[in-house]
Amino acid sequence: MKIPSIAIARLSVYARNLELLDQKGVEVVSSVRLADACGINPAQIRKDLAYFGQFGVRGVGYYAKELILEIRNILNLDKKWRLGVVGAGNLGSALLRHAQFVDGSYTFVAAFDRKPKRIGAKIGGIEVSPIEAMNDIVKKMGAEIGVIAVKPDWAQEAADLLVAAGVRGILNFAPIQLQCPAHVFTENADFSLRLEALYYKLTPARSRRKRHMKSGSVIAPK
Amino acid sequence: MKIPSIAIARLSVYARNLELLDQKGVEVVSSVRLADACGINPAQIRKDLAYFGQFGVRGVGYYAKELILEIRNILNLDKKWRLGVVGAGNLGSALLRHAQFVDGSYTFVAAFDRKPKRIGAKIGGIEVSPIEAMNDIVKKMGAEIGVIAVKPDWAQEAADLLVAAGVRGILNFAPIQLQCPAHVFTENADFSLRLEALYYKLTPARSRRKRHMKSGSVIAPK
Repeated sequence: MKIPSIAIARLSVYARNLELLDQKGVEVVSSVRLADACGINPAQIRKDLAYFGQFGVRGVGYYAKELILEIRNILNLDKKWRLGVVGAGNLGSALLRHAQFVDGSYTFVAAFDRKPKRIGAKIGGIEVSPIEAMNDIVKKMGAEIGVIAVKPDWAQEAADLLVAAGVRGILNFAPIQLQCPAHVFTENADFSLRLEALYYKLTPARSRRKRHMKSGSVIAPK
Repeated sequence: MKIPSIAIARLSVYARNLELLDQKGVEVVSSVRLADACGINPAQIRKDLAYFGQFGVRGVGYYAKELILEIRNILNLDKKWRLGVVGAGNLGSALLRHAQFVDGSYTFVAAFDRKPKRIGAKIGGIEVSPIEAMNDIVKKMGAEIGVIAVKPDWAQEAADLLVAAGVRGILNFAPIQLQCPAHVFTENADFSLRLEALYYKLTPARSRRKRHMKSGSVIAPK
């Protein structure tokens, strides 16, 4: 059975809201209450969870701690995932520094850049290596997921290098769609796309420039 | 006509890929070539663009520079949007420092935190203010979009404060679903959700712990 990506992404949201409720001392949560906390329809929650098993007690609800453990198991959050980042500029450095303080499911084990001046710097405890060393270091450090924090013009090349070095997952902060072989999974984390969606919503239609309709440019292309 | 959010998000992707092609000297792009660059079906591109007008020349394609301008106009990217961030910890600081170097569509004009030790610090050129000053500073600085970079346990409170201060859009990095009034638009930018989707895809089904089916916990809740 193929499980929709969006259902998997919502599991993370359920787990976080369950953790907040658990911290407040809530032991049992109805799907209506969980739905309310998540801003999601209760039927959607039941449907999403049904992909992974049968949870909860009829007429009672979900045991918060139990469901948290189940979701952590499904998403494999108790493993410490090993990440390598390509790009040690502003974004890459920020991610490396941020990760130091996150007691979470991941840790950076390698960082790469192609600019000679950045090589050898230590950021968030990780030394920046040249991209030529990627193959060796990814294997030696056991990096499983590559993070792309480079400008769009060489994001695809960075992805190709990561795939050749053996990573099987890529988190892409660059605003392009990566082309990767079928055995490699990619996820897009470029927040400027979300910002631009906000710009659109905040712009009154009347304030957009009127397009100049030209006879040569109003026909659909082949 | 209601335009799907996902179509708006894809416009950003089209614009970026058109800019890459334009930089390579490409003047005219067929929808097939643009689709290939974006990793999206050509029919999808034509359908998305049709929400906003008629673009391109039949049998020729799109003029790259012209379509870039059209999309920049639709998304209102030529305006410099004014952002205020709540949370000057690792993530908030990283965003403020990153923004300094981005010659883009946004600029941070304010930063807030509730921890006394952070107040008064200058990060990326912006002074951190106490949350009590949010109302005044948001108005004075004309902040239009609030960015939430705080821990999930007070993200909703941060959103409420931003809304009360008058922002109309919120970019939320916290892993919770915000509840906001209908006139306020929110977008979720939490990249750990994308990482967790990768964890799931990278975990072989056989390696997940078997759930202990208990008689009391296998029935769907109400």
